[in-house]
Amino acid sequence: MFVAINFIDCDVHYQERFEELFQSRAGEIDTMPGFQRMEVLRPLENGGEYLIMSHWDDEESFKQWTKSNAFIKGHSRGFEDIRKAKEAGQKPPMRSSFKTYNIISQ
Amino acid sequence: MFVAINFIDCDVHYQERFEELFQSRAGEIDTMPGFQRMEVLRPLENGGEYLIMSHWDDEESFKQWTKSNAFIKGHSRGFEDIRKAKEAGQKPPMRSSFKTYNIISQ
Repeated sequence: MFVAINFIDCDVHYQERFEELFQSRAGEIDTMPGFQRMEVLRPLENGGEYLIMSHWDDEESFKQWTKSNAFIKGHSRGFEDIRKAKEAGQKPPMRSSFKTYNIISQ
Repeated sequence: MFVAINFIDCDVHYQERFEELFQSRAGEIDTMPGFQRMEVLRPLENGGEYLIMSHWDDEESFKQWTKSNAFIKGHSRGFEDIRKAKEAGQKPPMRSSFKTYNIISQ
């Protein structure tokens, strides 16, 4: 089984908006072949990163999603927020770092 | 729902042993009240960290586990490897960093 995690360093002032984006998500990813589940983890330690974690049957299913219209639609509001910050000469309100894994034991 | 993740920076020469410890684990944690599931994630990027992830009903259930005999028994072989390395004047073959989360969206 394949797992992708997006580690999100989110500015404090953007956290409420960030969480709201996920709580009101359209569920585009859920329709993708090979998708199993996703979870959004809020850090309990100060300054910690959010984790956006998705489980897939295999890496290929995940890659197909990143190339899909569902990916663009699912990220449109967040990408728009980043674009607006750049236009206003501000740094983006969140920075993301993507990592991938295989599950070797359960 | 509460999630604990142990991020493990594991030396290359210790990876096979490290994985074997989990694949042959006694399953002590599975008997703890409030335990839901655990997963061991192997990084696909070079130099990445392993993630040992456990899901719990709440933080209190997790804390009770860290104080339990099941915790000591479940970690005894890894702790012993670290102790031996220190005795031999070597650095420990793995370094761990513990972080905790709440699930805010699925």
